[in-house]
Amino acid sequence: MFISKNLNINKKGNLEIGNVDTIDLVNEYKTPLYVMDEDVIRENCRSFKASIEKYYGDGLVCYASKTFCCKEMCRIINDEGLGLDISSGGELHTAMSVNFPPEKLVFHGNNKTEQELKLALDYGVGRIVVDNFDELSLLTRLANEMNKTANIMLRIKPGVDANTHNFIMTGQIDSKFGLALETGEAFAAAKLAIESDNINLRGFHCHIGSQIFDIEPFALAAKVMLLFTAKVKNELDYEIHDLNLGGGFGIRYTLDQEQKPNEAYMERVSEVVKDKCKQLDIRLPFILLEPGRSIAGPAGITLYKVGSVKKIPDVRTYVSVDGGMTDNPRYALYGAKYEMLLANKANLPKEREVTVAGKCCESGDLLGENVKIQEVETGDILAVLATGAYNYSMASNYNRIPRAAVVMVSKGKARTIVKRESYDDLIRNDV
Amino acid sequence: MFISKNLNINKKGNLEIGNVDTIDLVNEYKTPLYVMDEDVIRENCRSFKASIEKYYGDGLVCYASKTFCCKEMCRIINDEGLGLDISSGGELHTAMSVNFPPEKLVFHGNNKTEQELKLALDYGVGRIVVDNFDELSLLTRLANEMNKTANIMLRIKPGVDANTHNFIMTGQIDSKFGLALETGEAFAAAKLAIESDNINLRGFHCHIGSQIFDIEPFALAAKVMLLFTAKVKNELDYEIHDLNLGGGFGIRYTLDQEQKPNEAYMERVSEVVKDKCKQLDIRLPFILLEPGRSIAGPAGITLYKVGSVKKIPDVRTYVSVDGGMTDNPRYALYGAKYEMLLANKANLPKEREVTVAGKCCESGDLLGENVKIQEVETGDILAVLATGAYNYSMASNYNRIPRAAVVMVSKGKARTIVKRESYDDLIRNDV
Repeated sequence: MFISKNLNINKKGNLEIGNVDTIDLVNEYKTPLYVMDEDVIRENCRSFKASIEKYYGDGLVCYASKTFCCKEMCRIINDEGLGLDISSGGELHTAMSVNFPPEKLVFHGNNKTEQELKLALDYGVGRIVVDNFDELSLLTRLANEMNKTANIMLRIKPGVDANTHNFIMTGQIDSKFGLALETGEAFAAAKLAIESDNINLRGFHCHIGSQIFDIEPFALAAKVMLLFTAKVKNELDYEIHDLNLGGGFGIRYTLDQEQKPNEAYMERVSEVVKDKCKQLDIRLPFILLEPGRSIAGPAGITLYKVGSVKKIPDVRTYVSVDGGMTDNPRYALYGAKYEMLLANKANLPKEREVTVAGKCCESGDLLGENVKIQEVETGDILAVLATGAYNYSMASNYNRIPRAAVVMVSKGKARTIVKRESYDDLIRNDV
Repeated sequence: MFISKNLNINKKGNLEIGNVDTIDLVNEYKTPLYVMDEDVIRENCRSFKASIEKYYGDGLVCYASKTFCCKEMCRIINDEGLGLDISSGGELHTAMSVNFPPEKLVFHGNNKTEQELKLALDYGVGRIVVDNFDELSLLTRLANEMNKTANIMLRIKPGVDANTHNFIMTGQIDSKFGLALETGEAFAAAKLAIESDNINLRGFHCHIGSQIFDIEPFALAAKVMLLFTAKVKNELDYEIHDLNLGGGFGIRYTLDQEQKPNEAYMERVSEVVKDKCKQLDIRLPFILLEPGRSIAGPAGITLYKVGSVKKIPDVRTYVSVDGGMTDNPRYALYGAKYEMLLANKANLPKEREVTVAGKCCESGDLLGENVKIQEVETGDILAVLATGAYNYSMASNYNRIPRAAVVMVSKGKARTIVKRESYDDLIRNDV
């Protein structure tokens, strides 16, 4: 019935997450409420980590913190021995506020500011993923000025675009991210990085898209990256140490989607990398993976209280909840679909088709259209599933709606990990 | 050349707003930076206010604070004698924190929470715009429990949808907002409100869409609302006092758009309302208008620093700035187009076509595609025009990017009205 195995229905007919009754959570922490299951997060961390150990050898799984970042999440990721993929000074600051080992940080972004790069050098970030020539030149200058060595990777466009149903080998050159292979740009950047003082080129990075279910595009991207690695070895006499294959692994948002086990990725990609390295006579690289959504996404749900239920004859039924695009803008942005149910009626059949609206003064503020849920009335608790990624992290204060709290559950217990914003928080920076 | 008359170019070739050099602003306040021109805001307030006085008589212009809300904006609106359209407890709290007169507040929303309605009754909000039957019943109960009178308007769907190029008279029934006329719902709600204890029905409200340039849909909506007013008078022997015609007046985002003068709306609508009231034998209502975008939008610009400039041969040039969808999600959400220029090269011709990308780790993080600007290089300052509405108010901390400061300029001087978020602000609520 559900898209995540940590969810079940208790004797009262209520939805449980991590063996905690969601209705008890609502009574204690109010709505809207993000709930994350710590055990799911840890299990996902472990399965990705184990897949490298089992199928490949040396590597590091780096959690993509843009999907869900807060102090406690950084602590858990560190506790599990993973690295952290960060993409701003703010994520860097969050990580360092809980003493995350800087050598296990991977700093991404198409346009890191001078201040962010200085901070990264100051903290000794293990891998700065340089996106373009402007950044390489800026970072070289800063490293020289600060008398530091910048450990970098180069972001390469492998020419594999897996964002469509059938992945394609063209088009990815039209991206704000990275250096193109086919124009010679990537090779020129590698040459420049190798020759630059205070720059230590650790390796190459690629990322082929988001929410991808098929493994073959990843395997193809790995091949392309190894061909480039061999070219750099042969023509520049420089053998890189790291190969970062990025993330983008699809998760199950709706019942009709099939998610691959976390292990499946490395099982296939290891084979390809090992074969290709042998064939090209290059050493096996230290592999980095950057799952984000696939670690945090399935761990989270959002709980809302139903306010008005508006039945428009022959049109549709609008169910308004006490959150919306402010806590989950993904429907407004991408038309993203979610599985939903009434947490207080979880044992009843889903017999109503409704449109779930948020409370913003904006007609586009919807969480889903034509969604099946149980027979609904004011006061019910709506659960939206698989909201652990890109929900809290993308939340806004549009309409000056305070951001919801985040509660972490584990083995029957709950604790707040991000406090609910107060009205005073909203005016804190107002003069 | 520019879409707002408060912008000009100084002798250095730099863009000025409110007679302040934008490059001086960048040097003092850093980027990204929202800049609002107080004189434009005040002039817009005055022209709407004057248009009611000149063409109609009694009424109140209420600024739609969801477009841009902070303490200083509420002070200015109050200083200009306008009312305030609020749509959450957070906006209510902001207004009350600067002692906004509660009787001049209009509280909107399709799903106000019990806590928000209690707060509104406690503060004595002048007009609570009741959206639906569930809310009417909840508000009646709360007013009785608190022994207060709830002053309400009813939100009506007039059946005029002006969100398309050619406005249509059908379809608007499929909205999360309001009570439908054609189903008898609106009439039933009016009857119930009139009969309810502790409920004072002040009048009716409608809102026909956003960013509308044509005045005729507004005139038509006014007619529909007056027909309903007459029906309620005749059949329920109850004559309402207020008619709230909402907002939605279009502003000029790009040079090819033509914005009507603020006065034009009331000039035409007054005529219609006066004629129709005479014809229907109903008294002239107290008119409320709710401009938001048309007050704040043209007053604001956003300044960014250009980071990397990525020229992809035969594809496009990506210009990355130090902000993006976090401070202006409107391109990501709606593909909204903006006029842009390089503030430090404002006197040069716009000869480059570029795609402006934000700094988020998200390929959809763009501010515009195929935008004409001056010949561009790293370090230039990009100005995006007409960002006063729905930019700061919709901002997020996605990628844990701190929200930009808002600076207000007036007659050659600048002051901070919303402080830039710090990295510590980002982790303030993290446990």
